[in-house]
Amino acid sequence: MSRLDQQMAFLNEADRLKSILRATTLCDGSRMENSAEHSWHIALYALVLTEHAEAPLDTAKILKMLLLHDLVEIDAGDAPVFGTHDADDLAKREQAAADRIFGLLPDDQAQAFRAIWDEFEANLTPEAQFAKSIDRMQPPMQNLASGGGSWIDYNVSYDRFATQIGPKINHGAPKIWAWLQPKIATFFANRD
Amino acid sequence: MSRLDQQMAFLNEADRLKSILRATTLCDGSRMENSAEHSWHIALYALVLTEHAEAPLDTAKILKMLLLHDLVEIDAGDAPVFGTHDADDLAKREQAAADRIFGLLPDDQAQAFRAIWDEFEANLTPEAQFAKSIDRMQPPMQNLASGGGSWIDYNVSYDRFATQIGPKINHGAPKIWAWLQPKIATFFANRD
Repeated sequence: MSRLDQQMAFLNEADRLKSILRATTLCDGSRMENSAEHSWHIALYALVLTEHAEAPLDTAKILKMLLLHDLVEIDAGDAPVFGTHDADDLAKREQAAADRIFGLLPDDQAQAFRAIWDEFEANLTPEAQFAKSIDRMQPPMQNLASGGGSWIDYNVSYDRFATQIGPKINHGAPKIWAWLQPKIATFFANRD
Repeated sequence: MSRLDQQMAFLNEADRLKSILRATTLCDGSRMENSAEHSWHIALYALVLTEHAEAPLDTAKILKMLLLHDLVEIDAGDAPVFGTHDADDLAKREQAAADRIFGLLPDDQAQAFRAIWDEFEANLTPEAQFAKSIDRMQPPMQNLASGGGSWIDYNVSYDRFATQIGPKINHGAPKIWAWLQPKIATFFANRD
């Protein structure tokens, strides 16, 4: 296979991410969101919102992370944050998926893309921390717009959200969490 | 409205791109593709394929162009390349859409994003020419995978494809067109 043959095989395989459904609906509640359009949307979030990071970040690296971050779901599926899953088993399945899917690319590119995905997963660099926070804040934005979404489906309370998800948004994007938190508190208060 | 209020209003409005359907199906032919997941896919194409450009390009700028390029379809709709539409009328509707949608952002960001979209549309810089070529080559890739797709729906011949679309792929990405063209020729030859 030529280099372009390998690259095109990877790009055709990536198409399957459009058929992986998430636990969140579109803002209008009309259907569940898929992981490909979610990946586009959070890359756009990052493009708009990086100015609110605590220090200047490498925007191009964040965009690459967010374009690649969910590809492993083609094999491992999407694990809803409020669902129950075996974290160790999921991590193993995602590692195997990364091996297979990035392995479709020419070796140098497979290694470069895998390094970007590994950096995102490790959540240690400022870019990964911001990208992870953006990935955590888009579902609540969609839930606020649709009238509850996955919070209703998974019977999530404000306390559970604020304990389980709040710190993950705050970790890489405290200014954005400071903007979002009162809106979510008000939403839950009006429901009760 | 605060700066974040304006940015989040733009990001929620962008969600509507997930409901704009294109003339192309997914690779497996299971349903029509929407413009949000298409935008993710071609940003991934660019990430993988920029090495085949004729000169080194600004990858971050290309990613930004491709993330933003279809947002105007929220108001103006997707105009299938093999369909019939009034090009002048479409251009006017897309300009009005760009005014409205980018205008949701804070002024400085609205102007910056509009400049990226204008550069893509003008198709004069190497980055825009490569991005436009990528945008033109993904539908035939999906048609090859699905067994014909929009070529069948719009009764497109090889000659029409090679005349109307081929030069647009070749313009910004001649090495990729050289790879793709014989595959498309073989596909049509086997159909006849």
